[in-house]
Amino acid sequence: MSNVELSSFLGQWLPRVEDEMKNVVTQHEATVAPHYGMMRYHLGWANEALQPQLYPSGKRIRPMLCLLACAEVGGDPVQALPAAAALELLHNFSLIHDDIEDGDEVRRHRPTVWKVWGIPLAINAGDGLFALAFAAIQRLRDYGVASRTTLEALGIFTQTCLTLTEGQYLDMSFETREIVSVNEYLQMIQSKTAALLGASTAIGALLGDATAEGVRQLQAFGQASGLAFQIQDDILGIWGDPAITGKAAGNDLLRRKKSLPILYTLNHDHVGEQFETLLDGSFHAEQLPQAMRLLNQAGARAFAEAAVQAEHERSMAALHNALGDRAEGSTLYALAESLLNRRT
Amino acid sequence: MSNVELSSFLGQWLPRVEDEMKNVVTQHEATVAPHYGMMRYHLGWANEALQPQLYPSGKRIRPMLCLLACAEVGGDPVQALPAAAALELLHNFSLIHDDIEDGDEVRRHRPTVWKVWGIPLAINAGDGLFALAFAAIQRLRDYGVASRTTLEALGIFTQTCLTLTEGQYLDMSFETREIVSVNEYLQMIQSKTAALLGASTAIGALLGDATAEGVRQLQAFGQASGLAFQIQDDILGIWGDPAITGKAAGNDLLRRKKSLPILYTLNHDHVGEQFETLLDGSFHAEQLPQAMRLLNQAGARAFAEAAVQAEHERSMAALHNALGDRAEGSTLYALAESLLNRRT
Repeated sequence: MSNVELSSFLGQWLPRVEDEMKNVVTQHEATVAPHYGMMRYHLGWANEALQPQLYPSGKRIRPMLCLLACAEVGGDPVQALPAAAALELLHNFSLIHDDIEDGDEVRRHRPTVWKVWGIPLAINAGDGLFALAFAAIQRLRDYGVASRTTLEALGIFTQTCLTLTEGQYLDMSFETREIVSVNEYLQMIQSKTAALLGASTAIGALLGDATAEGVRQLQAFGQASGLAFQIQDDILGIWGDPAITGKAAGNDLLRRKKSLPILYTLNHDHVGEQFETLLDGSFHAEQLPQAMRLLNQAGARAFAEAAVQAEHERSMAALHNALGDRAEGSTLYALAESLLNRRT
Repeated sequence: MSNVELSSFLGQWLPRVEDEMKNVVTQHEATVAPHYGMMRYHLGWANEALQPQLYPSGKRIRPMLCLLACAEVGGDPVQALPAAAALELLHNFSLIHDDIEDGDEVRRHRPTVWKVWGIPLAINAGDGLFALAFAAIQRLRDYGVASRTTLEALGIFTQTCLTLTEGQYLDMSFETREIVSVNEYLQMIQSKTAALLGASTAIGALLGDATAEGVRQLQAFGQASGLAFQIQDDILGIWGDPAITGKAAGNDLLRRKKSLPILYTLNHDHVGEQFETLLDGSFHAEQLPQAMRLLNQAGARAFAEAAVQAEHERSMAALHNALGDRAEGSTLYALAESLLNRRT
């Protein structure tokens, strides 16, 4: 399937995911309306006065992966709609809490939920969205999915929730540590990002009636694509064009973000100590060229690009195992390529 | 069944609930051990250094209600163990977050999770426990419960999670409001406390293979018992003997806690304004006798006691509908009575 077919598929199905999500996050009794209003605000459906208004929302990558996996193994995407909605709601619950935990004040160019309504109400709104994500996936039964299959999807979903909290734990624990190894970092992004992408493809495949092996391979595809995407993002955070990434040049370095190229350089035998001394304390914008030199000396970009390539190859191998010769013509292939910003 | 039989039942089953909970909150990879350690600390199984140590934990009322309901409708409590564990884990997740939201620094005579590890890690540990509660209830399948019944239990469980967040929303929203009506207060405790107790008996009955009507009646029993218990607690918070309640005399008044007797008096036609003026601003311990006089003038105690009595009668009627003539001899009856501190 080509990019055109991918666009057409998404144009048809993403609005239905949005409707499914809205059916779950419905207006309730007036007394608790603001509780749901905060969730709708976060999802891009309401303004700060909690009145209906549409804002740019996330890319809905998880629902896309779920629906595409279902379709590619020969299933009817309708049956995967409740799961697609649940995956996006789960992702958004975790964003509401992550924003509190990381102290982030802006998301998608709008103040975060906690910034507008305070931490206590924001924690609770996140919890409500967490519960609604579980309600959403249980609607699979209403779509005619067998009880046993619904429970199987729920099992993957629940394990992934837990894994997300492990990833967030690791991410936070890194902040108080002097040094974090490359492997520890990879475990963190596997848990925090890749696991949910893998769950999205796995659940989609399951609902499309794939074999157990097919589910496993598409899960591996989702996870490896997620890792590739995240590491690519780390590369762009340092060497990306600010005009395209929308992030200020050197932003990741100035924030001492523990991204792969930075950690690789900090752990480097020759320049590690020098890099650490430079980033310590009063590191400022004028020292950016010096930091870039050390990154280059360490070969951080080549290392990260090799890691992206390795994960990309892993994801393609899994896709081949799942779909055979159809792999390279599939919408999942097109989506993975477009996420990596490659022009094929 | 007598109190002796109740004690014997609980002596046999509560340790098995504890084992089931421990099987769910197991030690994971070393890198994320502290994430699970915080949960074990909160559950009373570990100290601040996250080493195994036993502390007084909660009363495990929800698991008790679940197992007793299962047994009283003729089921095998073994089959309800995963649900009993899940209900207690859910309750404890909500306590970890409530403590953050309410700024409470002590629970069960120990520092709260956020007080020891900070708000970000505590939010995330609560989220992990939330996910584990969902993992726990899905173990029903491993205990031989049919997929369809497991999903039915999950449906009640999920709806109750959402209701808990609504109750917590109401509770928090009351704090910023001048006046809260008695009915609004009752809706709050229904959502925040009674709903989960009702879910406990409902799920227990369901797993004991009760009829749909039996499930409904035992849910009503659990909810009404929960309301009676909560309002009784409000009464003790003002007129209870500090030596027995463990709370300082006048504590609820000095904290301006929005409890039923206080709200009833604030809303009272004759003394409401005077009571409000008294509690406003610089209310202190020496004014307690004056506050008590106003509460008495309003008839707040009689009103609250009548509310307890009404809920108690409602719970007994539901129990009769569910169990017929066995109601008064049942362990559920004995438990409800003992929760109200009545000597039968």
